[in-house]
Amino acid sequence: MPSSSAAELVDRCRRAGLALATAESLTGGLVAATIVDVPGASDVLRGGVVAYAPAVKHELLGVDAALLARVGTVHEEVARQMADGARRRLGADLAVATTGVAGPGAAEGHPAGTAWVAAAADGWATAVPLQLDGNREAVRRGCTGAALRLALDGVSRLSPPGGTVKTPDEER
Amino acid sequence: MPSSSAAELVDRCRRAGLALATAESLTGGLVAATIVDVPGASDVLRGGVVAYAPAVKHELLGVDAALLARVGTVHEEVARQMADGARRRLGADLAVATTGVAGPGAAEGHPAGTAWVAAAADGWATAVPLQLDGNREAVRRGCTGAALRLALDGVSRLSPPGGTVKTPDEER
Repeated sequence: MPSSSAAELVDRCRRAGLALATAESLTGGLVAATIVDVPGASDVLRGGVVAYAPAVKHELLGVDAALLARVGTVHEEVARQMADGARRRLGADLAVATTGVAGPGAAEGHPAGTAWVAAAADGWATAVPLQLDGNREAVRRGCTGAALRLALDGVSRLSPPGGTVKTPDEER
Repeated sequence: MPSSSAAELVDRCRRAGLALATAESLTGGLVAATIVDVPGASDVLRGGVVAYAPAVKHELLGVDAALLARVGTVHEEVARQMADGARRRLGADLAVATTGVAGPGAAEGHPAGTAWVAAAADGWATAVPLQLDGNREAVRRGCTGAALRLALDGVSRLSPPGGTVKTPDEER
């Protein structure tokens, strides 16, 4: 049974003519897989990058290597750059990203459950912090749900229900 | 609860010092997500590419565009090139790929459940055909399980239990 957020996301992107992409670290492909659960996902999903090793975030998504060296991978600007890299590399209108600590145990000085989700469109990117409870699976599922909700916010920004497309603001 | 194949794959790659990558079409990230379910997956998984749109198979994984135009995406050589592209792009020792039709309904002239899984290492690639029963979710889960089992075969080839590493054969 596809998630209701994913089904709504596919439906709204299809109606708005928006192409989607994903960039995932701690969720490891679960955001993309949840979207692909929806029949007709191929109408809107270009694809995604699972950037699990830190170097892959730079090599495939273009995240600034000096930034990664300075702040690590669990950081709002890393999340925004991951989303923006996926958007550009995959030729999408809107991309979402996840990065954080699934657990068990802390990583890079952050407790398990610490994560960022981000969304990016042309000239616009935003990131939201999360502190999730539960085991590894619960953290990854919670982060996936938050990423899908942030993607829906992005669709509203790019294609508002009223029909007037906002000029994208630079929020970085 | 991580899948037993994924847990065995992470354990055997860790002991053999092998880095893994994935390239996924119809499974849409589920192979990577299933590996990431295993605590300690970060020791072995570099990452993956969800190449859902046909063009992404060429753009991010280097699958021959003329081949895609000629045979479509549900083809053994496409699967092998996807795996080899993920291996190279992600700097992995071993990569697995999936491509096929999850359904509902046929695509590119193939019935739902038709799929190929492939594995590639340096100088070696192999592909296995699948005909899976069930709905969209069952097809994707069956394809994910087959990809994990093929990855385990790849580990045995690269790091056999007896300890003698075989010279990779060119099977293409």
